[in-house]
Amino acid sequence: MTETIIKVDLKKSAYEHDNIHNRWHPDIPMVAMVKPGDDFKIECLDWTGGQIKNNDDASDVRDVDLTQVHFLSGPVGVEGAEPGDLLVVDILDIGTFDESQWGFNGFFSKQNGGGFLDEHFPEAQKSIWDFNGMFTSSRHVPGVEFAGLIHPGLIGCLPSKEMLEEWNTREKELYDTEPDRVPALAALPYAETAHMGRMKPDDAKVAAAEGARTVPPREHGGNCDIKDLSRGSKVYFPVYVEGGGLSVGDLHFSQGDGEITFCGAIEMAGWIHLRVNLIKGGMEKYAIKNPIFKPSPITPKYDDYLIFEGISVDEHGKQHYLDVNVAYRQACLNAIEYLKKFGYSGAQAYSLLGTAPVQGHISGVVDIPNSCATLWLPTDIFEFDIKPNADGPTKFLDGSVTMPLAPDIKK
Amino acid sequence: MTETIIKVDLKKSAYEHDNIHNRWHPDIPMVAMVKPGDDFKIECLDWTGGQIKNNDDASDVRDVDLTQVHFLSGPVGVEGAEPGDLLVVDILDIGTFDESQWGFNGFFSKQNGGGFLDEHFPEAQKSIWDFNGMFTSSRHVPGVEFAGLIHPGLIGCLPSKEMLEEWNTREKELYDTEPDRVPALAALPYAETAHMGRMKPDDAKVAAAEGARTVPPREHGGNCDIKDLSRGSKVYFPVYVEGGGLSVGDLHFSQGDGEITFCGAIEMAGWIHLRVNLIKGGMEKYAIKNPIFKPSPITPKYDDYLIFEGISVDEHGKQHYLDVNVAYRQACLNAIEYLKKFGYSGAQAYSLLGTAPVQGHISGVVDIPNSCATLWLPTDIFEFDIKPNADGPTKFLDGSVTMPLAPDIKK
Amino acid sequence: MTETIIKVDLKKSAYEHDNIHNRWHPDIPMVAMVKPGDDFKIECLDWTGGQIKNNDDASDVRDVDLTQVHFLSGPVGVEGAEPGDLLVVDILDIGTFDESQWGFNGFFSKQNGGGFLDEHFPEAQKSIWDFNGMFTSSRHVPGVEFAGLIHPGLIGCLPSKEMLEEWNTREKELYDTEPDRVPALAALPYAETAHMGRMKPDDAKVAAAEGARTVPPREHGGNCDIKDLSRGSKVYFPVYVEGGGLSVGDLHFSQGDGEITFCGAIEMAGWIHLRVNLIKGGMEKYAIKNPIFKPSPITPKYDDYLIFEGISVDEHGKQHYLDVNVAYRQACLNAIEYLKKFGYSGAQAYSLLGTAPVQGHISGVVDIPNSCATLWLPTDIFEFDIKPNADGPTKFLDGSVTMPLAPDIKK
Amino acid sequence: MTETIIKVDLKKSAYEHDNIHNRWHPDIPMVAMVKPGDDFKIECLDWTGGQIKNNDDASDVRDVDLTQVHFLSGPVGVEGAEPGDLLVVDILDIGTFDESQWGFNGFFSKQNGGGFLDEHFPEAQKSIWDFNGMFTSSRHVPGVEFAGLIHPGLIGCLPSKEMLEEWNTREKELYDTEPDRVPALAALPYAETAHMGRMKPDDAKVAAAEGARTVPPREHGGNCDIKDLSRGSKVYFPVYVEGGGLSVGDLHFSQGDGEITFCGAIEMAGWIHLRVNLIKGGMEKYAIKNPIFKPSPITPKYDDYLIFEGISVDEHGKQHYLDVNVAYRQACLNAIEYLKKFGYSGAQAYSLLGTAPVQGHISGVVDIPNSCATLWLPTDIFEFDIKPNADGPTKFLDGSVTMPLAPDIKK
Repeated sequence: MTETIIKVDLKKSAYEHDNIHNRWHPDIPMVAMVKPGDDFKIECLDWTGGQIKNNDDASDVRDVDLTQVHFLSGPVGVEGAEPGDLLVVDILDIGTFDESQWGFNGFFSKQNGGGFLDEHFPEAQKSIWDFNGMFTSSRHVPGVEFAGLIHPGLIGCLPSKEMLEEWNTREKELYDTEPDRVPALAALPYAETAHMGRMKPDDAKVAAAEGARTVPPREHGGNCDIKDLSRGSKVYFPVYVEGGGLSVGDLHFSQGDGEITFCGAIEMAGWIHLRVNLIKGGMEKYAIKNPIFKPSPITPKYDDYLIFEGISVDEHGKQHYLDVNVAYRQACLNAIEYLKKFGYSGAQAYSLLGTAPVQGHISGVVDIPNSCATLWLPTDIFEFDIKPNADGPTKFLDGSVTMPLAPDIKK
Repeated sequence: MTETIIKVDLKKSAYEHDNIHNRWHPDIPMVAMVKPGDDFKIECLDWTGGQIKNNDDASDVRDVDLTQVHFLSGPVGVEGAEPGDLLVVDILDIGTFDESQWGFNGFFSKQNGGGFLDEHFPEAQKSIWDFNGMFTSSRHVPGVEFAGLIHPGLIGCLPSKEMLEEWNTREKELYDTEPDRVPALAALPYAETAHMGRMKPDDAKVAAAEGARTVPPREHGGNCDIKDLSRGSKVYFPVYVEGGGLSVGDLHFSQGDGEITFCGAIEMAGWIHLRVNLIKGGMEKYAIKNPIFKPSPITPKYDDYLIFEGISVDEHGKQHYLDVNVAYRQACLNAIEYLKKFGYSGAQAYSLLGTAPVQGHISGVVDIPNSCATLWLPTDIFEFDIKPNADGPTKFLDGSVTMPLAPDIKK
Repeated sequence: MTETIIKVDLKKSAYEHDNIHNRWHPDIPMVAMVKPGDDFKIECLDWTGGQIKNNDDASDVRDVDLTQVHFLSGPVGVEGAEPGDLLVVDILDIGTFDESQWGFNGFFSKQNGGGFLDEHFPEAQKSIWDFNGMFTSSRHVPGVEFAGLIHPGLIGCLPSKEMLEEWNTREKELYDTEPDRVPALAALPYAETAHMGRMKPDDAKVAAAEGARTVPPREHGGNCDIKDLSRGSKVYFPVYVEGGGLSVGDLHFSQGDGEITFCGAIEMAGWIHLRVNLIKGGMEKYAIKNPIFKPSPITPKYDDYLIFEGISVDEHGKQHYLDVNVAYRQACLNAIEYLKKFGYSGAQAYSLLGTAPVQGHISGVVDIPNSCATLWLPTDIFEFDIKPNADGPTKFLDGSVTMPLAPDIKK
Repeated sequence: MTETIIKVDLKKSAYEHDNIHNRWHPDIPMVAMVKPGDDFKIECLDWTGGQIKNNDDASDVRDVDLTQVHFLSGPVGVEGAEPGDLLVVDILDIGTFDESQWGFNGFFSKQNGGGFLDEHFPEAQKSIWDFNGMFTSSRHVPGVEFAGLIHPGLIGCLPSKEMLEEWNTREKELYDTEPDRVPALAALPYAETAHMGRMKPDDAKVAAAEGARTVPPREHGGNCDIKDLSRGSKVYFPVYVEGGGLSVGDLHFSQGDGEITFCGAIEMAGWIHLRVNLIKGGMEKYAIKNPIFKPSPITPKYDDYLIFEGISVDEHGKQHYLDVNVAYRQACLNAIEYLKKFGYSGAQAYSLLGTAPVQGHISGVVDIPNSCATLWLPTDIFEFDIKPNADGPTKFLDGSVTMPLAPDIKK
């Protein structure tokens, strides 16, 4: 029987777990040691540590404390791992807890986190997704059921001291260009809610002040939110400290490319089954800066798509220069308008794009001044036919089902 | 036998063809009329109208006249098509000419066009790709042979007068923000090299001064360079003028997502076999602004990938805010460095990313301040194994094969 | 939390479970009732009820009591199900028990069961397969690791009295044509080892004498051993008795088309998560005689194959008339000879064909006198390259690992 | 430009072509020589040499002269090929002739050829399929359009003298077991209609009496009718004579597994583009008896199936012993009955199973006494939804379109 080397208790606070941390720092002590060739399981809280509940009230999304996230399980040390190695991680499986057969998706309020389409969806909303074996469906977003492309949103090794400094420096420089912006340009170190795992209190206090936030993806991987880095994939992680120090969390039952809804994919607590090996000196051997990976042989096969194009002219008619973000935003908005013709609310459509295995392709980046991005919507996830035909769309949904919204509180 | 309604002569100049045009304008006369339900073939020059030759000298790429491109075949009128309709186009097939079994890929000089990685590859280079039935290989980029995912880089209907004005206005506004930039921020109307098809000389003269350049993708589709809009796909185009006015050109034998090399994909002359139908009032029925499409059931199945991540910190260590372009550029550079370990030159690796059916995914766009983009490199196109292993890479290529480069001419 | 309506205890005999049966009979009492729309879990013993052990001794395979199999969990009644309906079953998931992370494959002795290639492998052998998350590998068959295409080998509804009689009659007629044959032509009712679930002892005694053996697939589905009827698939079963009476067992972690090794696939104990619905009168509506199904959207994607042909001339040179069995046997033997060139023993190769997601296609059935069958061997399951090349094969295995064999006992 | 080394004239008789033959014999002279590494095109008549016409009258199918088939283009010699080598053939492409954009499918009369379901469809019928670029549809079988999985039904090298004798001996032995059977058990040599290519008349006369008929697949490949040996695949053929002597014909635009309709797939004239290489001594190196091949990377992706099961109890209720042919026949009949519920005639449904990219899997061959075979019907080829639902099927077709039938002529 495979050993579970990190266990969590969903009923306890993340801060009560010493095998969990929420900042990146080279000195966080390993909570377990494994050998190359070993396989083992790790349990994870959801990324917010239980802040979001399985109910019909979005105020928890509105009031979320984003300085706490993400709660990661680890770090796990690998014997013999040294800076410059590649840590080869086979994601052998990922699963849910019997007692927690659900996940959440939401949009943060523009006042607290915001998101990709916060101009259009400025207030907090959420949808709850039930897990039906390998499939999921939502009482808040009717008409779809699809198989989960389960993956860890966040996984990677501890940074070295030098790398940490580089992160903090460059992000601070960006932040400082517009320090009053809401949402902020970058999430800087924030000691108050830092959880430094098993560091001794005095050390933790110092480290908390400089520990990098877990929000952005960085050289080590981290919060990449790559939906295809899923169970069955094989990942090659750069190693920066002795032992590697692999941490993982932010499990997603399913997500669309871009994780456009920010809060986030279908977020869940669960476990992940890993096997580790080393390629000694692999970073130099293969010129690796960021992780590389091979996709899983076992992923949901939704091969029929309706593909929406977007160009880098924004919804106000303004021309941007080769901006893929703007182009993808337009593709998303185009898809949302399309889905509304079948009876979805805008919020439901947005939620679908954030949760279903939607692909986002960078289709053209050189044809000045317009980038072209495409959003690939799988048609087989719908219980009805969403393809165009000469008669026009049928409104399958009557609008009776809505997505919880929590209005901003006027201050 | 299917009728070829537009024929071209590869030995003649594009300007000698009155069934070709290189600007978008509502008044360009239809060169043929078809009925809904009809299928027909259209022949196309390559996008440059034959400026690039099948040889080992890149000076033609360096000296290309980019004000001439793209040469499009059309417009084709569809009986009954009216503004607001959707023109449903089945791309039944695309093929090459027996006498022209090759295509080209290249990087423009930063002085004349530039491209996605022109900071790293500032001078003109090119590679020639031979077609071996459904497959292609290059004497300039050894070690690969892959099946073509053949598609039109550019296809769409004529804009209305209002739409044309909107295009010209917004692009001029952008251009004017930095009018001396090289390369320019936008390609503005340019009468001198305009080819207005069958317009009467006087009308053409006026129209040429306002005809939109074909470079960027826009609301009507146009130069989207979407590799998956390939033979076998079904596309729904917005109609803006009576008869629709469908034009097509810029055929690609194969291309990677982003068409990062700009010059371009594997560019070819050839023919396209289309079938057209109408959804009356379809734009309103389905809330369509940009074209949507369904991918083909018959595409090359390169399902094993090595996936490279990139984040929006540029190669100089500067932090950008959620910028997918920067992130994708890093993913591309990471892949290039990796391929160099197997013996490719940087230029060859870059060319591969521009020509092979590489996927570019928008993987994360909300995790401030870093976007994450992924580049999916199909492993089965290589004649050798490019996957990582504990022993490190084998240098399969000895560097004896190089890609033609034409140095900039000092002025 | 999904309810587990049938639980098993791997430490107890199958005969001690009253929610298990090993014969088909219309009067076996339902062990649970569910409603249309419900989902629930069912636990299953392995098909032999634990006769085969996780060790390196094949005598258990040699000495297996085949009159006991298969041990099925059920029957489950569905409220409102009536003869003539279709029972729609979504296989939401299938999983293993934490304490039983292994499965077995074997060949029966020709003296006790035999199998597809028993002329070549007449004695009992077995291999043990460890489960590594979604993947499996074997200490007896080195060089492969592959993802499981998990499925129930046996699932279906109780037969009606008339159907049972028809089964018994036609199978007896076949048996009687060669009653002394070893192995027998058909497995006839056999009361001694019958387990009739919750039937009252007196009724069970009568029913045991006529209860159909579970070995063959029949109109109701039953022991179809279809590898693609896997988790995620949707199956439409004919209903013959009030309540339907769905039973399931013989779970397989993976299997090749044909289940050519008979003992069997990778056989396992585990659980299955189902959801049921009804199509009233569906048998007549859709002219259904045997079950039909839709494959899962989530299956291992082993898309690169080496395909072996076989024709209906047997290994002794004898010409058979359009006999697909002979043709498939030749394709299998061809694949085995091929794999031996890489260092596998014949038995290991045979075991691979029985366990890996090998496809067997009926390629030609009309070109007299030869049928053509093809065996599709996925190349990506191997840790080394098994494709042909000009240099000839490399012997990756040195023969030091062998498969346990238990010689027949001379009587 | 690739050279076409064998050209045909569709307006002339096959017998007027000296680069065509219709029997297998080691002494048929090569019609062209190529070198390893060469690629070239070969044109082919349809397998009947033009006996079946593009019209609505099935009498040509009824009256076909089956002693003439198949007309093969070749043999092509490869320099350096010797017995024992493997001839590696890349099928680079296959195409149609501009002037022949159609193919035929039919059922032979039981009096003249018969077929897999001739008990149910005893009289000659045919359907004509138009080619729409990569797609095909039929005026005789409404409601479907699908992409062609184009392949040669027949391809292989010349047999050696010894192999030829073995073929003739074993087939004669089978024939002699029931010499008066209609249709015959085997197609024996038949000099009268033999076409021995460029053999000198006297030699041809002798050879014609012993030349093997092209009907069955054999060790060399030959008439395998494997739908997946399609353009883009790579095939390894055993070589038996100096130069190899590769011949090819019987091109199919599309076919279902089994080619159950016998006349046949969607049969067409066209061309094939090949590249050849050698593995010296490859037969021994890889233990090759029959050809092996790798499937194409570019095939139609019809991944959603409705799967029908069949067992080896025939339609009269008779129990057969592990007979895959009977099982597949039942799966086919089950699919036909199902399709009739949507408005198809039995003949149209049968034609569909013979022409569309239907899969036939050998699902179980050991569960005595029943084999299980499955027929995989792709759902995306239909213009309407053929999946089951609670309301029952909609009859999309009104029966107004029928398939031509030519009644047997009473003698």
